[in-house]
Amino acid sequence: MTSLLGLALTDPNIPTPSFVIEEARLEKNLRRALDQARRLGVTLRPHLKTHKSIGIALRQMETPKGPASVSTLLEAEYFFSHGVTDLLYAVGIAPQKLPQVVALRERGCNLKIILDNAAAADAVSNFCREHGVSIPVLLEVDVDGHRSGLAPDSSELLTVAEHLQTGARLVGVLTHAGASYDEPDLEHVRKAAERERDGIVLAAQRLREAGHQIEIVSVGSTPTVLMAEDETGVTEVRCGVYSLFDLFMTNVGVATVDDIAGSVLATVIGHQPAKGQVIVDAGWMAMSRDRGTARQKRDYGYGLVCGVDGTPLRGGTVLMKGANQEHGIIEATEGPALRPEDFPVGMRLRILPNHACPTAAPYEKLLLVRDGKIIEELPHVRGW
Amino acid sequence: MTSLLGLALTDPNIPTPSFVIEEARLEKNLRRALDQARRLGVTLRPHLKTHKSIGIALRQMETPKGPASVSTLLEAEYFFSHGVTDLLYAVGIAPQKLPQVVALRERGCNLKIILDNAAAADAVSNFCREHGVSIPVLLEVDVDGHRSGLAPDSSELLTVAEHLQTGARLVGVLTHAGASYDEPDLEHVRKAAERERDGIVLAAQRLREAGHQIEIVSVGSTPTVLMAEDETGVTEVRCGVYSLFDLFMTNVGVATVDDIAGSVLATVIGHQPAKGQVIVDAGWMAMSRDRGTARQKRDYGYGLVCGVDGTPLRGGTVLMKGANQEHGIIEATEGPALRPEDFPVGMRLRILPNHACPTAAPYEKLLLVRDGKIIEELPHVRGW
Repeated sequence: MTSLLGLALTDPNIPTPSFVIEEARLEKNLRRALDQARRLGVTLRPHLKTHKSIGIALRQMETPKGPASVSTLLEAEYFFSHGVTDLLYAVGIAPQKLPQVVALRERGCNLKIILDNAAAADAVSNFCREHGVSIPVLLEVDVDGHRSGLAPDSSELLTVAEHLQTGARLVGVLTHAGASYDEPDLEHVRKAAERERDGIVLAAQRLREAGHQIEIVSVGSTPTVLMAEDETGVTEVRCGVYSLFDLFMTNVGVATVDDIAGSVLATVIGHQPAKGQVIVDAGWMAMSRDRGTARQKRDYGYGLVCGVDGTPLRGGTVLMKGANQEHGIIEATEGPALRPEDFPVGMRLRILPNHACPTAAPYEKLLLVRDGKIIEELPHVRGW
Repeated sequence: MTSLLGLALTDPNIPTPSFVIEEARLEKNLRRALDQARRLGVTLRPHLKTHKSIGIALRQMETPKGPASVSTLLEAEYFFSHGVTDLLYAVGIAPQKLPQVVALRERGCNLKIILDNAAAADAVSNFCREHGVSIPVLLEVDVDGHRSGLAPDSSELLTVAEHLQTGARLVGVLTHAGASYDEPDLEHVRKAAERERDGIVLAAQRLREAGHQIEIVSVGSTPTVLMAEDETGVTEVRCGVYSLFDLFMTNVGVATVDDIAGSVLATVIGHQPAKGQVIVDAGWMAMSRDRGTARQKRDYGYGLVCGVDGTPLRGGTVLMKGANQEHGIIEATEGPALRPEDFPVGMRLRILPNHACPTAAPYEKLLLVRDGKIIEELPHVRGW
């Protein structure tokens, strides 16, 4: 592979599809979360699952050693190999993964795990006893019925804590207000942030009253972190997709289209003039199968189509309406049908994705862009 | 990475999520298409985009050199590096990709390209003239309004052919009856296969009457290839997802659940007992965001849940109903709610996917299984 550094996005030597990140937008998004955490008086523990790239993580974290969250142990291995030591694996632990967790810890990674049930607590405790090791554990708390976690007012919360024995050290509580993605407006998101805080603070308080030391009180989702007004009692906030943002988050209302930093660079390969369609070489493998905006205020199909400079075409009315594995089908949603002469074969377009996380995932590397030129090729980690 | 060879799927040393392929089912599926092609008297040109693995391609192709189809030039590079020389890049060519096409051809790869418009034909012709090279081209024909292609009865078909000059050699016609995925029953799929054949044969005939030599007459989609009764006038059939099959194809009716060869191995990490939910460590990154069955006869959510032996649980009524990036939420769709004691933390499950192609894509390797044990770790290619 020859270097792409310095090439303009119109340069035919840049392969398509490629995943492109606007540095100015990225920096603005990263700054926003750091500023918000400082204003709230909490630590920012960004979730690195969105881009899985050390090049972005280093711009995003409070220090080069973290803190940060990851969604897989492969991400933990990767970021630790690049010097990030304060890591939280934010998916309930499967007992089989404990040897890998301990191996990372013994190499100097301060990796923390989470769980929400007595069986997992027993498994961690038994593993620690058998191997003479210690693993810091956060209890996962459910504040909104989104997914996993123990109810903050439940007896199970205290029971599971009691099951953490010997080296399985209870160090904190964690929740993720994932239901905030579905709130109808920002006022409801603010209330979701309050509920998230109230729930986790209650859980921490009950555990402390039961004699447990709770150092970390961790909350987060991009909408609640950005809209929270008060995080009293919370020690850290986690968020991930805010680094790149996406169309889904514009519908939630916490970002505008101008904030979306990640897009897919594509090339026009043909047309269906009778249908007003333009065909590009980026399909659902390039955009992901995520159709999250289908249930929101505005359905963006498989993505919002922009010129190569990143400006939405025709005021934001041109969408990728359909997709096959490596074909995208682009149409105007209003006004006259698209004309082949305005989209010649070989023309470059940029498509904003519904959801940054699955869209960025399959690319071998992410291309960082400043003033329309590639300034960095960012490697990242894929798979498990 | 230590070797996984010989391990049973219950072995905790197998990481989860993993993508697992049942060898017996794979072989049955591959045999079915080879037998069908022989019965129809045509060549089988399998599409390798579903698994992107040479280990499967070698079992699937008529010879180790091909023929085969690919969906990206990275796939072409990869399969050519493993000895496959008769390759068709089945996405309309973007002019910028011609240097890579020619580089592959000069190394000995008989790579063919497709296009459906005069601008692309001009670009290929100009490139061939400027560089003194020859590239075999197939014209893409549209038989069902699915996507790209020229109408078989159109004047444009002949016009575009005329634009292929000098080294841009017209060698054939190609179509993909992608609309067959949406047919209501197998009788309609059979009719779609007839329309596919009639359309491509008409296109070939008109081009021949205009003085062009048409050697390759290529059709295909998994449903039409498997259901076709007569391919007179066709020289080759292409299909891809039949190698693994998936839930979408069971709804189309060309496969049964017992034919699905690919599944995701996952581990139980927790429960939400009040909601009858079991949480596993395979979310939409592992299953893909593909919800194609949502618009079919039966909506399988994010996948059909099986025991580690591959048998659907409770007669096929347990589904992955929800998914986050690395979490899957499993529920029963009828009968009593799932009980935590039946799904202990650490338990292994296998989830059949809606769509094999996006599901297999992100894994570093695919695990081939015989009698519940891993017999081969299949590398494959990812990204672009």
